[in-house]
Amino acid sequence: MEIVNRVSRMAAMTAKVVSEDVKIGLVSTMGAIHPGHISLIQAARQMTDIVVVSIFVNRLQFLTEEEYRQYPRDITRDVDILRQEDVDYIFTPPEEEMYPPDFTTYVEVESFGSKLPGIYKRNYFRGMTTSILKMLHIVKPAFIFFGQKDHLQGAILRKMMRDLNMDTEVVVTPVVRDSSGLAYAARNYFLSPAQKAAAPVIYRSLQAAQSAVLGGELQSKKIVKQITDVIQSEPLAKLEYAVVANPDTLEPLTKVQDSALIGVGARIGETSLNDSLLFERAPKT
Amino acid sequence: MEIVNRVSRMAAMTAKVVSEDVKIGLVSTMGAIHPGHISLIQAARQMTDIVVVSIFVNRLQFLTEEEYRQYPRDITRDVDILRQEDVDYIFTPPEEEMYPPDFTTYVEVESFGSKLPGIYKRNYFRGMTTSILKMLHIVKPAFIFFGQKDHLQGAILRKMMRDLNMDTEVVVTPVVRDSSGLAYAARNYFLSPAQKAAAPVIYRSLQAAQSAVLGGELQSKKIVKQITDVIQSEPLAKLEYAVVANPDTLEPLTKVQDSALIGVGARIGETSLNDSLLFERAPKT
Repeated sequence: MEIVNRVSRMAAMTAKVVSEDVKIGLVSTMGAIHPGHISLIQAARQMTDIVVVSIFVNRLQFLTEEEYRQYPRDITRDVDILRQEDVDYIFTPPEEEMYPPDFTTYVEVESFGSKLPGIYKRNYFRGMTTSILKMLHIVKPAFIFFGQKDHLQGAILRKMMRDLNMDTEVVVTPVVRDSSGLAYAARNYFLSPAQKAAAPVIYRSLQAAQSAVLGGELQSKKIVKQITDVIQSEPLAKLEYAVVANPDTLEPLTKVQDSALIGVGARIGETSLNDSLLFERAPKT
Repeated sequence: MEIVNRVSRMAAMTAKVVSEDVKIGLVSTMGAIHPGHISLIQAARQMTDIVVVSIFVNRLQFLTEEEYRQYPRDITRDVDILRQEDVDYIFTPPEEEMYPPDFTTYVEVESFGSKLPGIYKRNYFRGMTTSILKMLHIVKPAFIFFGQKDHLQGAILRKMMRDLNMDTEVVVTPVVRDSSGLAYAARNYFLSPAQKAAAPVIYRSLQAAQSAVLGGELQSKKIVKQITDVIQSEPLAKLEYAVVANPDTLEPLTKVQDSALIGVGARIGETSLNDSLLFERAPKT
């Protein structure tokens, strides 16, 4: 395993192996490596010849400077964990190489996801697409791996790559949860013990939605009501959004059809958490 | 020479040859092939193994629908001309493949060039950068070739590629002019005989600027005045801009330094034409 902290070194390595027809897999992270990341790395290992894990806390992806500063950073711990996985390169570009002082170029997927109530954060997504586009140019992966938890990100990135004629494919893997049902996420780090005990309500709300659908309920309104009721039963949780949408276009659906994304976001204290279920005829989590 | 009119076919060919470490050169055009394009193709031939000429009238690059519709299109004539050059592929993607109905992704180089008076057209440049980014992903060139005439485009593209960590290099070649001094351009097609006789005033204004600089005049204001005076001497011409700028950053310069771009734009009738000189210690055209 090599730790690469220069953009030029990473780009030179990937250009060389791509010209030898070697397939690269990219797992793009902001560090705080958790079991969700590990499952992405294992999927990458199975599908590609060289696995690159990027660790970059992307300033553009935060709504406030405060949130950016407080984001957990522990590169030593992350490297220790990744050493136990079969990772070929850890790519940790410095801020000043990713965003030099004169940086002004942004890529934006317009409109997409904007019909979903309460979750379209223009700057956040613009920061995410810009950073990932740069990573794709540097790392040149055949596949990039995302967790189903970040359903919106995955759908927006697929749209960006389609619109911009990129060869990289997005692979979305199932959500990984702890025994309480809470999806692993770097932001869980911010939860107090009481909040951590409350957070599994998010997954319980999705389970209620799943039961309703399996019981024959197809009306999105009713499904959203189920989710809302469960979240409201937990005093420490505040619903941010609950949606039933087409998983590819993110257009809201009035009825669950052959395939549907049921997504939920809730604030536990000051921490926003997301989770989702993907229905594809036979429901999957 | 093969004519490729499917994005998927072009992308499959370029992916294959790039994995064999073959260098591709791209000359991106909107058709109406003229001697300026031919000089770009010849530069590409010298520097690369495979030369791709794209012909795509990019709707996003026009300020009005009218202008877009009236742009000269004669693919048969263009192909006849290109057959006489050593071109490997002509890439003519259809509009609906480049911009399918649900297309919404744009790349924008913000601020850049915005301090230059009267020439920063946000949508125009956003359309240009978006289209070229797509072309770069499809064609995967080691080098893309631009004429010095389109000085702003070249500088903005270099900035985009730097900001987005792209491997492609921009090669800028000197302006090609007819015997009157008029730079070859597709838009010359719109000039009436009287306008065509008037248009060389643009190059004459640059020659006046060049003489002034060679005579020791370094103040941008005075140089711009020279250009303005020459353009105003021609009743059919209307000055759109005259600038002295840093060729890399496009920041306006108050004095000509080691290197300076002197750019001029003028309207002849309804047709906007550009031209420029690049000074690099020893002046060049």
